[in-house]
Amino acid sequence: MRNIKLTLAYDGTNYHGFQVQRGTGLKTIQGTLEKALSILTKEETPVIGSGRTDAGVHARGQVVNFFSNSRIPVERFPLAINSLLPSSIVVREAEEVPADFHARFSAKRKTYCYTLYNDRVMDPFWRYYAYHVPVELDGAEMSKACVLFRGKHDFRGFCASDTTVKDFVRTIYACSLAKEDKLWRFTVTGDGFLYNMVRIIGGTLLEVGQGKHPAEEITALLKKRERKAAGITLPSQGLCLLSVDYAEEYPEKVN
Amino acid sequence: MRNIKLTLAYDGTNYHGFQVQRGTGLKTIQGTLEKALSILTKEETPVIGSGRTDAGVHARGQVVNFFSNSRIPVERFPLAINSLLPSSIVVREAEEVPADFHARFSAKRKTYCYTLYNDRVMDPFWRYYAYHVPVELDGAEMSKACVLFRGKHDFRGFCASDTTVKDFVRTIYACSLAKEDKLWRFTVTGDGFLYNMVRIIGGTLLEVGQGKHPAEEITALLKKRERKAAGITLPSQGLCLLSVDYAEEYPEKVN
Repeated sequence: MRNIKLTLAYDGTNYHGFQVQRGTGLKTIQGTLEKALSILTKEETPVIGSGRTDAGVHARGQVVNFFSNSRIPVERFPLAINSLLPSSIVVREAEEVPADFHARFSAKRKTYCYTLYNDRVMDPFWRYYAYHVPVELDGAEMSKACVLFRGKHDFRGFCASDTTVKDFVRTIYACSLAKEDKLWRFTVTGDGFLYNMVRIIGGTLLEVGQGKHPAEEITALLKKRERKAAGITLPSQGLCLLSVDYAEEYPEKVN
Repeated sequence: MRNIKLTLAYDGTNYHGFQVQRGTGLKTIQGTLEKALSILTKEETPVIGSGRTDAGVHARGQVVNFFSNSRIPVERFPLAINSLLPSSIVVREAEEVPADFHARFSAKRKTYCYTLYNDRVMDPFWRYYAYHVPVELDGAEMSKACVLFRGKHDFRGFCASDTTVKDFVRTIYACSLAKEDKLWRFTVTGDGFLYNMVRIIGGTLLEVGQGKHPAEEITALLKKRERKAAGITLPSQGLCLLSVDYAEEYPEKVN
């Protein structure tokens, strides 16, 4: 029995999120991948994801693993699975990993990107991949706010209020804003993220950019631990899971 | 009665091309735009396009015009029409033009771009906007071939064979290849294009890149005037109408 790790890219637009919703008939990334794998390996192969992504959320580097008795050489997996998958999901890499590798529990860090499209008129090619912001933004103030999210904080105020989680402390290793013409990309790396956390941090940054909060207020907002004090939850289509990192050490120091 | 010129961007993926196909019920760019305009202006307003684009072909700078008695200030048109259009079609600009302006007959030059995605594995985010080429390409040879398309030529061999056109002579003002990571963009400006001409030039360039023809053969292929001597017709999804130019003078000299 081999443990196989796959790195996936997918366009989440037409999926009801990553996680299989058994018995619902809803199309999910996990369900579609499991179906392709069962055809390929002739085994029922439950797939373990690094975490869920919501409906409409995209990935460039989602990681999953599964166990298989298949004798297909691991380097042949990407092309073989891709030929059975719709073009909206692509296996970028496959590798054999130790038996105790678990896509979720072994993950050390994740990096997400949220994309804003900032222009009076929206670009139709970005409608499923960015959030349209038609007003001017103060990028310098937003970048200042990004810095204040770095480090170890209690993110209770930056999490969907209906969560069952008990521990709200997470470490943000990197948080920055990059502008390229009309696209503004906010990229954040952390040891884990609460439900809707990236989308709420993004919504708060957006409000900073619109002058609704000064950047310095971020520290106070974190201390408040109240969902309603933070910004809006940005819509799913601008969010993309860029990578999942399994290395023990983070190459850069925090802050 | 005012003559209004609109510049449009659209994602052609889910449309049966630009041109209305009356009585078929098929969704087209022109039909969708005419419907939005009739709601806005309370007039039946046939829209004149600079030319058709095929099913699946995109535009960043398609131009249309229409006549209207509406008193809506022209600068308000983009937002007003966009609020009535699906997000796949966007009016980027509107301006009032002289009564004799005709989006098709007044056009002096058009610029198209064809995008190739060159990597072993396809990127799912480019599946509707580029053609996947999994093999290595010789960019230097393709750029050499581009140069040979410039100038005034008889393009009978680079046109769908079932055409009704009589005059196959067209002038290509610019033709070049640009590479950006895995994306290869071939951009061509001409005084007009025959049916499938850009997609056939692109298919021929691709074959040059794969070593099927040396670049120098382009001159002989043009002289042959035989469709089957040229390369394949690339699929529609990689093609985008970038702009339509109405200025009398071309700013750069040909060749």
